[in-house]
Amino acid sequence: VTRSSPASDDVRLRGFADLATLASAHAWIDARVTPPAAEAVGVGDGVGRVLAAAVVAAGDHPPAARAGADGFAVRSADVAGATAYDPVPLRLAGGAGPLGPSATALVAAGAPLPAGADAVLGFDGAQPSGPGLVDAVVAVAPGAGVDRAGQQLRAGALAAAAGRVLAPRDAALLATLGLARVSVAARPRVRLAVLGPKEPGAVDAHGAALGALVARDGGELEALPVGGPPADALARALRAPAPALVLVTGRTGTGPDDDAAPALAAAGELALHGIALRPGGSAALGAAGGVPVALLPGDPLACLVAYELLAGRLVRQLAGLGPGLPHATRELEVRRKLVSAVGFVDVCQVRIVDGQVEPLGVAEFGGLAAAARADGFVVVPAPLEGHAPGARVTVHLY
Amino acid sequence: VTRSSPASDDVRLRGFADLATLASAHAWIDARVTPPAAEAVGVGDGVGRVLAAAVVAAGDHPPAARAGADGFAVRSADVAGATAYDPVPLRLAGGAGPLGPSATALVAAGAPLPAGADAVLGFDGAQPSGPGLVDAVVAVAPGAGVDRAGQQLRAGALAAAAGRVLAPRDAALLATLGLARVSVAARPRVRLAVLGPKEPGAVDAHGAALGALVARDGGELEALPVGGPPADALARALRAPAPALVLVTGRTGTGPDDDAAPALAAAGELALHGIALRPGGSAALGAAGGVPVALLPGDPLACLVAYELLAGRLVRQLAGLGPGLPHATRELEVRRKLVSAVGFVDVCQVRIVDGQVEPLGVAEFGGLAAAARADGFVVVPAPLEGHAPGARVTVHLY
Repeated sequence: VTRSSPASDDVRLRGFADLATLASAHAWIDARVTPPAAEAVGVGDGVGRVLAAAVVAAGDHPPAARAGADGFAVRSADVAGATAYDPVPLRLAGGAGPLGPSATALVAAGAPLPAGADAVLGFDGAQPSGPGLVDAVVAVAPGAGVDRAGQQLRAGALAAAAGRVLAPRDAALLATLGLARVSVAARPRVRLAVLGPKEPGAVDAHGAALGALVARDGGELEALPVGGPPADALARALRAPAPALVLVTGRTGTGPDDDAAPALAAAGELALHGIALRPGGSAALGAAGGVPVALLPGDPLACLVAYELLAGRLVRQLAGLGPGLPHATRELEVRRKLVSAVGFVDVCQVRIVDGQVEPLGVAEFGGLAAAARADGFVVVPAPLEGHAPGARVTVHLY
Repeated sequence: VTRSSPASDDVRLRGFADLATLASAHAWIDARVTPPAAEAVGVGDGVGRVLAAAVVAAGDHPPAARAGADGFAVRSADVAGATAYDPVPLRLAGGAGPLGPSATALVAAGAPLPAGADAVLGFDGAQPSGPGLVDAVVAVAPGAGVDRAGQQLRAGALAAAAGRVLAPRDAALLATLGLARVSVAARPRVRLAVLGPKEPGAVDAHGAALGALVARDGGELEALPVGGPPADALARALRAPAPALVLVTGRTGTGPDDDAAPALAAAGELALHGIALRPGGSAALGAAGGVPVALLPGDPLACLVAYELLAGRLVRQLAGLGPGLPHATRELEVRRKLVSAVGFVDVCQVRIVDGQVEPLGVAEFGGLAAAARADGFVVVPAPLEGHAPGARVTVHLY
């Protein structure tokens, strides 16, 4: 899909003559994926990060039998037949030495089981009966109240797979196994250049939203000061240390001042400009100085949609995550027709009413304000002219 | 549920005589909720935070009619009947002044519509026909290609409701409306004291997981150095500036060294110790120096479950969020019986196989390692002895 002569692709004052398919844009993106570098972080800081290498248990966990409850460690054979009416007297042993016949030792949950003991009686199963003496009033099976060696994990068992996004409970498990640090995929550095001019007093809407989206996708956004001509902004964004990806927002359309794509063509390569995607179709993809560059539209909703469907796909993969949209999904029935244009992938903002999907009343005109009220969005494939009532669709949930 | 004589509640070497219900623990927690303070943050930093006050549009958005597409602004009446065979010639006007009869002006999407114009012709609908001349080759309806004033939001319309967790698209919308900063609920400061002694070289599993869980629930965890006697740890955790909540982990059970609850009773009030919850039932709730204190079990899975069902409920509400578990849920059918004990709320780690729920094979013995393999958990109410195959249950998804 690389075009050899970007000058002839200048769409200003002419419109997009032909549009790339979303699939071809994805193919271009997927060809730019490089494996993430690994870095070591504290195990608690690893939560939410992508594990770079599998962690297997170095030894059994627990490493040796231990008390699974607070109580008295016993030899189960000693207390066979014990009842409240026929208690078995046991001698309370101090220290951590081996347990002799008819002896017992006070243990706390998690403490090593004394040698010789094979069960733990809870406090409701044993009563002090005199100085240094305890009456067992229930019998226990061997192993009762005991955590066996390797009960949670055997030596060599997988504790966490490579590529897993570490959950809080994973971090707790790895810490329990003795790992102070874990090796995780480094976060791709993404630089953002928001092109001017902006109205006086305007607040940058692109950086406000993209920082959180890039972080969600495993990257780290560094936003440059807003404004300046595209060539200067590109040069600043490409400065060492080289980023993994540059995002440029604004001036991607067909108007007289839409000079982002020509600037990218001049600085490197403009691979695609104009994608059969609504909104967001004026986005462009290319590279400069060996760094992939995504040009995103200036309209804030189009910018977010183009990020989600194009740039985000690259960020996720550079971070070691899967390419697909990261939203939770639900399969639901359409209640009111979702309108789309044949030939375009339409991203419809929808709400869920009584478990059914309907477009936002003013979606076509509501822009970002409608998206803010949406429960999710539906991606309507290019060959369809929408989804009729009763159709089942996948809703990507916000 | 406040007990007047904590000394008589000492459970060490005796076991829990009576257990509080989870509902009574929740009632105690909910009575400790105070409304969060508000703080102003940059609109981009507001993503993920709880909006402290509703934002309404100060004026119409857009404030005035503007071009909705790149192209030529026209008076639609001028181009009535235009076709490629019968084009309507228009004079290309420069500047931003009002549009006279049979005139047109080049506009970029988002630019103000010149006075007099009521539609925008795309570049496929108009062709330059000579110096300063453009031929309209299609007719347009009034309003075509125009974003009306207030089309996205009318003045006074709700842009984001108080209590909403700001999404990236909300931040973009509020920035577009001109808000540089937003007022959000301050994050409750949570202090964590992990009690010792720990084995030499042990890595703190509690802090590793709780930091991320507290952040998820809208709080900020400050972990104190691990170890030391409970009274000292409590005193350190309560130092000014006073936290909103203190978490103490470990030494909550019935063993000889389980001195966390007696230390809390001595420092303030031990309201509840021992809850009909599995795992996590040795947790305690109380207060010292006017600060709520939750004692969480030392076993890492029990600690996490007690955090989720007890302490997290307080963190979420102190942060302005709802009390309920924050996990996404699915209603699914049980494939293999989930075993529970009557009288206890059991938190069963489950996996989802072919859309059905089954307990992890070794859940009772697998501890945290089983939880790490789980897809979610099911909270089995106290009156039930489990869920039989075919029952529909709510899975809280990890």
